[in-house]
Formats: sequence, structure tokens, C-alpha cells
Amino acid sequence: MKKLRQISVVGMGLLGASASQAILRTFSKIKTVGYSHRAVTRKKARNFGVADEIVDDIAECVAGADIVILATPIRTFEGIFEEIAGHLPDGCIVTDVGSTKVLPHRWARKMLGNNVFYVGSHPIAGSEKRGVEFARDDLFAGSSCILTKTAGTDMKALAVLRQFWSKIGCSIKVMAPDKHDRIYGRVSHLPHVAAAALINASDPEQMKFAGKGFVDTSRVASGPENVWADILLTNADNVASGIDRLIKELSRLRKAVKDRDQKQIEKLLTQARSKRAVLIKYKMKKKELL
Amino acid sequence: MKKLRQISVVGMGLLGASASQAILRTFSKIKTVGYSHRAVTRKKARNFGVADEIVDDIAECVAGADIVILATPIRTFEGIFEEIAGHLPDGCIVTDVGSTKVLPHRWARKMLGNNVFYVGSHPIAGSEKRGVEFARDDLFAGSSCILTKTAGTDMKALAVLRQFWSKIGCSIKVMAPDKHDRIYGRVSHLPHVAAAALINASDPEQMKFAGKGFVDTSRVASGPENVWADILLTNADNVASGIDRLIKELSRLRKAVKDRDQKQIEKLLTQARSKRAVLIKYKMKKKELL
Repeated sequence: MKKLRQISVVGMGLLGASASQAILRTFSKIKTVGYSHRAVTRKKARNFGVADEIVDDIAECVAGADIVILATPIRTFEGIFEEIAGHLPDGCIVTDVGSTKVLPHRWARKMLGNNVFYVGSHPIAGSEKRGVEFARDDLFAGSSCILTKTAGTDMKALAVLRQFWSKIGCSIKVMAPDKHDRIYGRVSHLPHVAAAALINASDPEQMKFAGKGFVDTSRVASGPENVWADILLTNADNVASGIDRLIKELSRLRKAVKDRDQKQIEKLLTQARSKRAVLIKYKMKKKELL
Repeated sequence: MKKLRQISVVGMGLLGASASQAILRTFSKIKTVGYSHRAVTRKKARNFGVADEIVDDIAECVAGADIVILATPIRTFEGIFEEIAGHLPDGCIVTDVGSTKVLPHRWARKMLGNNVFYVGSHPIAGSEKRGVEFARDDLFAGSSCILTKTAGTDMKALAVLRQFWSKIGCSIKVMAPDKHDRIYGRVSHLPHVAAAALINASDPEQMKFAGKGFVDTSRVASGPENVWADILLTNADNVASGIDRLIKELSRLRKAVKDRDQKQIEKLLTQARSKRAVLIKYKMKKKELL
């Protein structure tokens, strides 16, 4: 790997602080510099020793970085790209850990200079918890990390990031940003919407009687709303078409139930069970599930 | 507790076999007798030592029982009540572990004689796994168990079952069957339908990219389709109205996303996160979550 001396992380929430801790643990010779726009978060990050250095100024954070990782809500990226563009060293690689990729690529192309290289990263890890206090240096270990590239992506920068995330413990997949957003609109953003809708459709007094099934089905709805609002806003069309598809399947089940059509109900439930069994088998084989 | 000498369990799937094992562990002086209509299941149940005795005949199973527990798919109950009615000792308490309660009460009233007492039980425990091989003597420990009663329910029989399930490790709630079905239509059957619809709306190739969120949100869809078809069929109107409500909430989120209405998206996601936080806090306090 290209000799890296400094990696800077902008944003000290769960993902940024976990990335920083993972770098500390994995690359003893690389200096990590962290930044948060909130003083209280910077203080916590210092107390937890999340990075070698936590600085008060974003320009200072990225100055001297070989890699800059954005770990803030997605809709801040455009402004941050603009803000840091003039402070990035030549040849710097800029990436992020955001859950949508089409708009970050567009903003990077618009805001960053030709002297730096943007590649999208999306480590498929996280938690419904938020904040630096829940950061873990192994949050990304054993996860997939999607790298996104376009026709203009620098292949050397992509190779550096591939090696970087691999050493953190991720298995790497590379795809175009639009393909990424289509897929994750369905397998991540849609489940979030479904979980939130399920909770919103539920009566608080009735929920008290719920068992583990309800708790698991709704778990992701406990995620931070600002992060998730940004995800839904930056992938709106894919999310909306996913909701349409989900409503179609719900309506199909509703009809079968209303008609007391046992054969059709069993057919739809069997389809779901079988498809999920294939998924679980695949995930077990790939060691992506315990 | 009334001196119990024999408890018989009809059905040796996950729930029946787990109930039987829990009785073996908890009540050393009570004889447990198990029955399954499938020879292969009876053989497995014998090999696993799930009950003191596994018999080949349902009449033989219930003869001499102080309590009979049905642990078969709900829509078999009517036929089983009819089949066993003539073989139940006077004063026998009949219950079940089914997930809906209105129809079992109706069938019991119709099929069972006045010499026996029916009370509904619904231990809120289970797993997406199925079969005697996954049975655990602690499956019900720490769970709620809903007992259902109507105006005609024998209060002594209810008291016996209350004590029985308490000793198994459940905390008891008593309610009317129609209230039970309304509540569980929303907090259990609707999440199942939502999980199945989410899987059915998903592309198998795209699902391979899913993370833990998708896996958790869809977990319950791996449940056995025959058991769940019976649940949905015997609670059809509540399930259908739950689906209507869920579709309404999904449509509300869809509109906010399509309109790029950040404020409304955040409002709906905040509502879900807050409601779930209250739920989790309640469950932790009640020690119903680890």
C-alpha cells in the first residue's frame, strides 16, 4: 500500500469514531486526526482517546491527510467538500461512510479539485445506537464494504482504499454508485421505512404486549432520524419505488387473508420462508452471520 | 395447586415439546404424556426423552390427564376437541398454546362437554425454528403468558393454569379472547406479514448485499407457513385492518420522501424512534429483554 502517514476523520459519531479507533488499532504507524463540529463531541472523543489528535478546526483536520473519511450525515457532504477543497494536500484520497452514493459522487465532482481523488465507501455495519460513546474498533470487522466508482475514478486511489478497508477487516465489493443506491434502497432503506411504519402503525399500550418478534422486526427504527432522513432524501426515488413494491406485496397478503384463501396464504408465506432460507444459507457460508 | 398427576401434550413441535420438557423439569411428580399424529415425530420425541411417555393414540394420550395442552396448528383444534371430548376425565382442564384465541374458545364451547374446563393460553415465546429437535425446557421461562377467559370460564381452572404457567416461569396476564386477538393481530401477526411482504418484495440477488438490519427485520418470516397460515386465517379481520394501517403509514412516509419533505420525514422517523424507545425501556424494566 502507498505509504500512508495520516488519515483524517470528519465526524465523530458512531461510524466516524469506530473508523478512527479501527485505524488506531490496525495501523500503528499512521496518525489519525479527528474532527467534529460540536465541541461536546470533540471533548468526548478526546476523553475516549478515539484518535491520536482531535482538532477544533476542519481545515486543520484535513491538512496533511493522505486519506480523508467523511462520517457525517450525507447531506452535509456537499458543504464539507466545498469547505475542505482548498485545504486538501495534492493526491489526497477523499472518501466517506455514507449509505447512499450517487449524490456524494456528484458533489465530489462539483466541489473537489482535480488534485484530489474521490472514491465512495459504504461499510455495511452500524447499529441502531448513535454517538461516540458506542464506538467500537471492531465495528467494521467481518463486514462487507462497498466501494463505488465511476468512469472518472482514479484506479490507484480505489486500490489504496480497497487495501485500507481490507486491513480494517472488511470484504470489498466494487460497483457503480447508481447500482449501489438501487440495491441498498431495497435491502437497507426499505426495511428502515418498514420498521418505522410498523411502529407508527402501533398503539403504545398494545406494544407492551409484544414479544421478541416485534422487537426484532422494528429494531432498525431506533436509528438516528437525522442520519436516516438524509439517507431517504438522497435516495428518494429508489426508496419510493421500494415502498410501492412492499405495499403491493402487503396488499397481496391482505387479499389472501380477507378471502380466507389458505392455499394462497401458505404460498406467499412459503415463498418468503424459502427466499429467506436461501439468504441465511448464503450469509452463513460467507461468514457474514454468526 | 390442585394435585396434578398427569399433564398431556398433543403436538410435539417446537412449542409442544418445549412445554413437555418444561413440565418434566419443573414438576418431577407429574407424569407427562405426549402425542403426535406423525410416527416420525413420535420417534424423535421418544429419542429426545421429551415426555415420560409418548403414545401412538390421541385418546390414550388424554385419558387420565388433569391438564391437556394442545400444541398443534390452530385450525386442527376443532377436530381435536371433537376427537378427544369423549376420552377426557371429568374435571379435566383443556388449554392450548395457540396464537389466536377467539375461535379456540368458540370451538371448545361447541365440541367439549360440560364435564371439562377450557381456558386459552398463549405463552409469548417461540422461535422461527420448528420441530421437536429445537425444543428447550426454558423456552417459556421469562415470557409473558396470556390466559383468556370468557363469562363462562371456570375460575378454578383459570387459577390452576395461572399457577401452572407461573411455575414454568411465565408472568401471567388475563384478558378476553377478542381483546387478545385484537392486540396480537397488531403486535405479532402484523409484523409477521410485514416481514414476509418485505422478503417477497426483495430480489434474491440484491438480498445478498443485505446487512444485519434486513436480516433482523425479516427474521420472523422464517416461521413455519402452516402454523402462520392458521394464525392469519383465524384472525383475518384484525390482520387485514392492521395491514391497512401499515399501508397508510408506509404511504405517509412515501409521500414525504417523494416530496423531499425533510421536516416531515424527520418527524415520522422521530415518532417511530421515540415510540420504540418507550417500548424498549418498558421491556427492560419488566426484564422481558436481555
